[in-house]
Amino acid sequence: MAIDELIYRIKYLRNPSVVGLDPQLEFIPECVWENINGSGLKAAALAVRQFNFAIIDAIAEIVPAVKPQIAMYERFGADGIAAYADTISYAKQKGLIVIADIKRGDIASTAEAYADAHLGRVKVLDQEYPVFDADFATINPYLGEDAVEPFINACRKYNKGIFVLVKTSNPFSGQIQDLPVNGAPLYEYVGKLVSKWGEGLIGEFGYSDAGAVVGATHPAQAKRLRELMPHTFFLAPGYGAQGAKASDLVKGSVVNSSRGIIAAYQRDPYKQRFSADQFAQAAAAAAGDMREELQYLEI
Amino acid sequence: MAIDELIYRIKYLRNPSVVGLDPQLEFIPECVWENINGSGLKAAALAVRQFNFAIIDAIAEIVPAVKPQIAMYERFGADGIAAYADTISYAKQKGLIVIADIKRGDIASTAEAYADAHLGRVKVLDQEYPVFDADFATINPYLGEDAVEPFINACRKYNKGIFVLVKTSNPFSGQIQDLPVNGAPLYEYVGKLVSKWGEGLIGEFGYSDAGAVVGATHPAQAKRLRELMPHTFFLAPGYGAQGAKASDLVKGSVVNSSRGIIAAYQRDPYKQRFSADQFAQAAAAAAGDMREELQYLEI
Repeated sequence: MAIDELIYRIKYLRNPSVVGLDPQLEFIPECVWENINGSGLKAAALAVRQFNFAIIDAIAEIVPAVKPQIAMYERFGADGIAAYADTISYAKQKGLIVIADIKRGDIASTAEAYADAHLGRVKVLDQEYPVFDADFATINPYLGEDAVEPFINACRKYNKGIFVLVKTSNPFSGQIQDLPVNGAPLYEYVGKLVSKWGEGLIGEFGYSDAGAVVGATHPAQAKRLRELMPHTFFLAPGYGAQGAKASDLVKGSVVNSSRGIIAAYQRDPYKQRFSADQFAQAAAAAAGDMREELQYLEI
Repeated sequence: MAIDELIYRIKYLRNPSVVGLDPQLEFIPECVWENINGSGLKAAALAVRQFNFAIIDAIAEIVPAVKPQIAMYERFGADGIAAYADTISYAKQKGLIVIADIKRGDIASTAEAYADAHLGRVKVLDQEYPVFDADFATINPYLGEDAVEPFINACRKYNKGIFVLVKTSNPFSGQIQDLPVNGAPLYEYVGKLVSKWGEGLIGEFGYSDAGAVVGATHPAQAKRLRELMPHTFFLAPGYGAQGAKASDLVKGSVVNSSRGIIAAYQRDPYKQRFSADQFAQAAAAAAGDMREELQYLEI
């Protein structure tokens, strides 16, 4: 099961963290651009691809997983999507587990197309093809169960997992997610739905293939959700650059840091130790430090 | 303003409808496949592109707008996204307004990348490029205002519009959207937020560039939302194949039909009149009939 593979890898590396591959162009140093011919969206997509590959090489033995944010590729159109697909395929080749941060959510027939593309296989004239073939995908629950079911089916059929948005890390997450529903916040209600959706998918560590996104920036809410959802593994964004610390985390989480790792060479304390040409080594150093900080986090 | 352009076009054609370009492969007839070389995802993307172009040619003088559902392209990877971009560009060239059905929603920096790509311009090395450049995009509100704001900014800056998911057309839409929040369903709360987000963007017909997705399959809820949101234009999916009728609609709506139009040649009563080779003529006939059915719908 996908969740078991993720937890095995976390235990093996003693590192419950995931590196967000969200390459903003201002993170990409001159030494990468120098190798790129051409201009425009195609050049940007090539630069992102080359930047990612170097980061992946540097961190593959340190972190269990990467989380490419598809928006950062989609913005370059078809070339960007090609770079996204190549990034996933290269990361998997290097032994990393890939969490596709797509936050898709749509009516059943459309959700099925997304599930086929991102986790399963797409059928064309009686042949089936893997398209993005990530290990996990993030899902938006606003449309309800029929929007999630095709992803649950893909988990079962293709040995994959999902993380459903429950309580996100952004400043306005409470505007809708914290609204009171029968005396409790909406995110608790959604959390219970996610638990239910994962009931048939629980692996050997007691966690299901249907996980939840629970922002590390909301420690009290995360503690409460941990109690309510004992069999749901958490993907916790918001660590590092968004402000959350190790003490804010709850057990059973895989913790994401994006620019704190991939742009470490531009940030304290790494910019004092690494030049822009050493961006990948800086990422490895930052990933190693994050592992230290998280070493006492229980599964 | 984008909403004014949409309403002008609706008035000019006396047709408040939009054709959903959601090309499932089973809709694509043999006569299209015969022109396609190769196999796999690339061939599928080419077939979709050719199918769409023929439909667009047939309906461009009948309907004001088309709504490509990006999932149906994304599932073919980078080739699919290229077909998606080509479809938008061809539809615009033919005078159609394009509503990108993307249902994106993410934290601020990511939402900005989506807004740049789908509605605005993407910056690469001090030059700006349009990527998909649709006229409208659909947005998921679950993350709250900071996830919507980059799209609102794009509306203002690039003369575009959005439709935010309020009450969707699918069977399980009530599971989260109907939950009681302080005595009223959640979708009413979200509806009021959408009204607020659109306050600075109201055009000459009294509607704002920030519209709402309100499923035609929920007529009572749509009536209530129409009262609550007098300045919000509705995108109403669910007409035709999903079961909604003209009498279910409320004023100030643009009504979507997808397979009811683009796969008309496979469905009653058109399959009796049109062969598979005449799929585009069948779509035009179905679009004309839908215009008749909706002619009394007020703006």
